[in-house]
This record gives sequence, structure tokens and C-alpha cells, in this order.
Amino acid sequence: MHQDVIKRIKTIEGHVGGIRRMLEEEKYCIDVIKQIQAVKAALNKASKIILEDHMNSCVISVIKGDDQVERERVLQEITEVFETATKV
Amino acid sequence: MHQDVIKRIKTIEGHVGGIRRMLEEEKYCIDVIKQIQAVKAALNKASKIILEDHMNSCVISVIKGDDQVERERVLQEITEVFETATKV
Amino acid sequence: MHQDVIKRIKTIEGHVGGIRRMLEEEKYCIDVIKQIQAVKAALNKASKIILEDHMNSCVISVIKGDDQVERERVLQEITEVFETATKV
Amino acid sequence: MHQDVIKRIKTIEGHVGGIRRMLEEEKYCIDVIKQIQAVKAALNKASKIILEDHMNSCVISVIKGDDQVERERVLQEITEVFETATKV
Repeated sequence: MHQDVIKRIKTIEGHVGGIRRMLEEEKYCIDVIKQIQAVKAALNKASKIILEDHMNSCVISVIKGDDQVERERVLQEITEVFETATKV
Repeated sequence: MHQDVIKRIKTIEGHVGGIRRMLEEEKYCIDVIKQIQAVKAALNKASKIILEDHMNSCVISVIKGDDQVERERVLQEITEVFETATKV
Repeated sequence: MHQDVIKRIKTIEGHVGGIRRMLEEEKYCIDVIKQIQAVKAALNKASKIILEDHMNSCVISVIKGDDQVERERVLQEITEVFETATKV
Repeated sequence: MHQDVIKRIKTIEGHVGGIRRMLEEEKYCIDVIKQIQAVKAALNKASKIILEDHMNSCVISVIKGDDQVERERVLQEITEVFETATKV
């Protein structure tokens, strides 16, 4: 997933640069807001892929391991990013 | 967590009933929308608690178990609800 | 729109009642979370219809009127519900 | 608001560049997701300011004008960005 996600984030970087130029050229407000919403959708897609990868590597190895404190930590982190996902 | 979540959902049920009455009494639109947003925030809180509980019971036991298909399934489910959380 | 929205909210009320029963019957956590997310999507749809109606009645008449304080108030309210919409 | 928003978007552009570097340096997944969520929160703030400005200029002048088709268009646009705001 790694190269794919880096590529996605690079595209988003360019997209945000495009929004900056739209503002500098005083483009229509609603069109700017729509582009911001498109960037948010692209960020959602990227974070979903990153979480999927995290689940299939880090989370499995920690849970199968013997360190209970570490186990609780990784599961707590996932709940936290889920909670934040409902808020931004 | 069980009784706590049931109580939260009962409160939300009453809250939605209150929104229905606001509409029947033709209350001001923006006030109705604000109450709908309050219900959404309460649902976010409830689903966070449910996910937390799920992590600390079901997910741990499945991952520590030997059924790899089942393990992939529970992790995939969490990624799915995370993805939907960014969309609703 | 009025009767349509009341009907939608009644359906949501029933849906939340169904979620309460799922919890009482100790149904699978992820299925409960998915139903909560479905309720949120239905609430989004209802609030969109209410805002649309508000725009086409109240907002137009206030903006065309002479009360500048009132005008600023209705526009400020819309910005506020938009801001909250990005958070819940 | 103009310069303020351009500055915010520039900061976001730099923030996304920082996320790209985190991925290139293989930083911890959850930390990357948290930075993505921080960018989304910053985008929400920027789009709120842009909408506020749009309301107080374009929307008021169009609604006070005589072009009913144009009036419906600007109000419809706001409902659309509100609807999308509940989804991304």
C-alpha cells in the first residue's frame, strides 16, 4: 500500500495548491468550497487505506504478542481515530 | 457498558420523538436542524462506546484464536465502520 | 415538504427503537454500529430537506426585507449549521 | 477574509507535505491518520470562513436582486454544500 498512499497524498498536496491558486485568482466561493470537500473525500480514502494496512500488520502482531499494556494501547488508538472520524 | 449504552439509545429515541413534535408544531427550521445535529453527536458517542467494548472483547479473542479467516473478517469490519464514519 | 419530513423522522424514531432492541438482545456490536450509521445518514437526508425548505421561504423573505439585523442573523445561522455539519 | 484564508490554505498545503514526508519516513500509521484528521479539521475551518464571506456578499446581493433564477441557484448551491458537508 505504501507507494500508493504516498502517491495519493502527493495528489492531494497538488489539489490543495490548486485551491490556493483559486483563492488568489478570486474564483467563485462555492467552487472553492466544493474543491475543499473533494480534498476531504480524498483524505478519507487515504486514511482508510492506512488504517487497513495498520490492522493487517501492527495490530495483529501486537494482539498475538504477550504485552497486554501494548495490546490495550493499539486497540485504544483505533477507537480514538474512529471517534475523531465522526467529528471531522 | 451494556446498560449505559441502552440508556443512551433510549434517550436518543426520546430526543428523536421531540424532533418529530417540533416539526408537528412547526417550530423554527434552524432549531430543528440543531436538534438533529445534537442527536448525531449523541449517536457518535454511543457508537464509540460500542466499538470500544467490541475491541476489548470480541476482537481480542478472535485475533488470539487460530481462525485466520475469522481474524481477517473482524479487522476488515472495523476498517469498514471507520470508512463509513468519515461519510455520515 | 412538511409531511414528508415528519414521516422520515417517524421512521428514524422506529429505527432507533430497533437499535435499542438489538442491544437488549445482545446482537453483534458491528451490526449495531452499522445501524447507528444508517440512522445518521437518514438524519442527514432529513436535515438537508429542512434546510432546503428554510432557504426557499424564511431566508428569501428576510433578505428581501428591510431588517438588516434580522438578515445578518439568518445568514449567520446557516453558516453555523454548516460548521456543525462538518463536525457531527 | 481573503488573505486570512489564503494563509490558512498555505499552512494546510505545508501540513499535507509533512504527511507525505511522514509516509516516506515510514512513521507510525496512527500518527499519520491523526495528522490527516487535523488537516480535515483545518479544511473545515477554512470552508466555514469562505461560506461566511460568500453569505455576506454574493448571497445578499443576488437575493436582493430581481433575477429569480439566479436567486434559486445561489440558495440551491448552499444546500448542496451543506449536504456534502454531512458526507465528507
